[in-house]
Amino acid sequence: MDLLALQTPALLLERTRLERNLAAMRERARSLGVALRPHLKTAKSAHIARLATAGGPAAITVSTVREAEYFAAHGVSDIVYAVGITPDKIGRAAALAARGVTLRMITDCVEGAAALAAFEPAEAGPLRVLLEIDTGAGRAGVLPDSDALLAVAARLTEGTGAVLDGVLTHAGHSYGCRSLEEMSRVAEEERSGAVRAAERLRAAGHACPMVSVGSTPTAVAARDLDGVTEMRPGVYMFFDLDQATIGSCGRDDIALSVLASVIGHNRHAGHILLDAGALALSKDVSAAEIRPEIGYGDVCDALSLEPLLGFHVHSVHQEHGMVPVAGDADYERLPVGAKVRILPNHACITAAAHAHYDVVDGAEVVERWDRVNGW
Amino acid sequence: MDLLALQTPALLLERTRLERNLAAMRERARSLGVALRPHLKTAKSAHIARLATAGGPAAITVSTVREAEYFAAHGVSDIVYAVGITPDKIGRAAALAARGVTLRMITDCVEGAAALAAFEPAEAGPLRVLLEIDTGAGRAGVLPDSDALLAVAARLTEGTGAVLDGVLTHAGHSYGCRSLEEMSRVAEEERSGAVRAAERLRAAGHACPMVSVGSTPTAVAARDLDGVTEMRPGVYMFFDLDQATIGSCGRDDIALSVLASVIGHNRHAGHILLDAGALALSKDVSAAEIRPEIGYGDVCDALSLEPLLGFHVHSVHQEHGMVPVAGDADYERLPVGAKVRILPNHACITAAAHAHYDVVDGAEVVERWDRVNGW
Repeated sequence: MDLLALQTPALLLERTRLERNLAAMRERARSLGVALRPHLKTAKSAHIARLATAGGPAAITVSTVREAEYFAAHGVSDIVYAVGITPDKIGRAAALAARGVTLRMITDCVEGAAALAAFEPAEAGPLRVLLEIDTGAGRAGVLPDSDALLAVAARLTEGTGAVLDGVLTHAGHSYGCRSLEEMSRVAEEERSGAVRAAERLRAAGHACPMVSVGSTPTAVAARDLDGVTEMRPGVYMFFDLDQATIGSCGRDDIALSVLASVIGHNRHAGHILLDAGALALSKDVSAAEIRPEIGYGDVCDALSLEPLLGFHVHSVHQEHGMVPVAGDADYERLPVGAKVRILPNHACITAAAHAHYDVVDGAEVVERWDRVNGW
Repeated sequence: MDLLALQTPALLLERTRLERNLAAMRERARSLGVALRPHLKTAKSAHIARLATAGGPAAITVSTVREAEYFAAHGVSDIVYAVGITPDKIGRAAALAARGVTLRMITDCVEGAAALAAFEPAEAGPLRVLLEIDTGAGRAGVLPDSDALLAVAARLTEGTGAVLDGVLTHAGHSYGCRSLEEMSRVAEEERSGAVRAAERLRAAGHACPMVSVGSTPTAVAARDLDGVTEMRPGVYMFFDLDQATIGSCGRDDIALSVLASVIGHNRHAGHILLDAGALALSKDVSAAEIRPEIGYGDVCDALSLEPLLGFHVHSVHQEHGMVPVAGDADYERLPVGAKVRILPNHACITAAAHAHYDVVDGAEVVERWDRVNGW
């Protein structure tokens, strides 16, 4: 099927770029001497999980229990659920463990540790847990040098419900970098903080075999990962304008786009209207925080994916995207019914509004892959 | 089921508030002497469509062809698809008409009109079309006094494929108002522009029976709707912080909220972490453009829905919401595992990430209603 025949808006995935991005990250992990545990929070697709882990163990990261359940149902048997566990989600996670999935949860507080420790071990054995470490992002996690690190570990291992498998960190502040040089420095903060936390835990008597780090910018820019056992980048599969703007990828690495149709010309206001708005593109404007002209995305030729006349989606309503244009020639270039593609600010958020990917190779739609949204 | 037993994040709908909002808008339409054709782009739920049209004809507005198909499958037989039609969507719309649905499409340009006019009439008869009018919003539509108005109407009625049923406008600029007084002025712009366009079309020989206006702020504030036949508000069903901030509703009218759990305490950064982030809440910050402290939403008590200690979701990552707090007492008030509810900036965008509503009456979950997302 010709991609121009798709009903719009539609979420397109460039197969060639996806495969190149996946291969490049596998090579990064290999050359750094760590395992790759891709984060599927961006792709949320069993098909992409298989491609991303090809040639290695089917070990992944997820951001919701629903993703864990979905990927387990699709045969993935080694999952890290990388968002702090709440006591009332332990049951769903334990149910997966009981079905043979190695599911690791994370916590960063004594309350979470206590709930895990108090869990009644099932036949599958105790729950497996990683301690979340804050290596500079300031989101979640205990500091590597804090008393809390040892206190949480001690509380976790008091009972018989849980075992401490290691530490996990996410250097989310790497998204604030503006160069590979800066990303390398953050990667070293991420590595050294995680390793220091693991060493302190080992000195206190915990085995702590896993040291898990990960974000796409630090995965791209890390110079060495001594002491780390695995990394968990996610958005590298698709990349986006935010990653291209901070420099972790090139514009031609962006594999995700939204196909849209021109639905009108507002000549008195000076813009073209698209049928991709706040829902199809999302209201994420992360790249526009650095380059305001980007707005809600770059307008590209529907077939070549090359930038189209410097057009951007300047504003959005629920189902409308507004693209300011200069004059008659622009309207003639994009008549009502014409199709364009929009490169998104933030692939994870844009993709989440769509139920599936139309996978394209050149002008051809070659496959349709599902996604698991919601919770 | 107790709402505190729900897995989080979850989208909650207060039944009492919903019913009160629906009744109030029916009374507004009655007192203004117009039909109510509620816009289901916010609710996207067949159950809510039935409640919203109770006591009158099942006539609704939708924002996607998929919504039209979903509501038609649930028995709704009178639908306006209020986003400019593209030539390649006419087939899906016509298929609904062939199944007995009165489906009206809109256009504002000669290209759209030409495609509709060229349609081969089916047994169901010609396609039914409304001309979109720009009454000040500057999004889509021809101006009431423009030559384009008559040119598009003439082109539409040249062939046998389509009939012109009237005009439609949406005063989206009413969202920029800051008082009921301003909304009343915009409502009069919306009314007078739509009526003027209809009168010019009638003078040119078009029957133009329908004059359709609508936005929640103008529906709430209109003083008279002389010459208008129907109104199409949507977000009034749920309201949200944006509507409360501009003054089209009170805070206690907001029927939609997101139930979230506390997943961690970052004492060194000074915030509580919730499991409702960019996906569960959306990245819409419309109310925060007026009151920046709102951020991504108001944190409320999970049971009373009263504001909680002035807390707001200050920043979001994909599955994390960060709520700055002052000190130990706040962490003790909200231990890990505690539940809160977040009032959203913009109900239409927040609801779109969720597959269903958990409908609550007091502390009790009384029903689960589905939603139709996507395209």
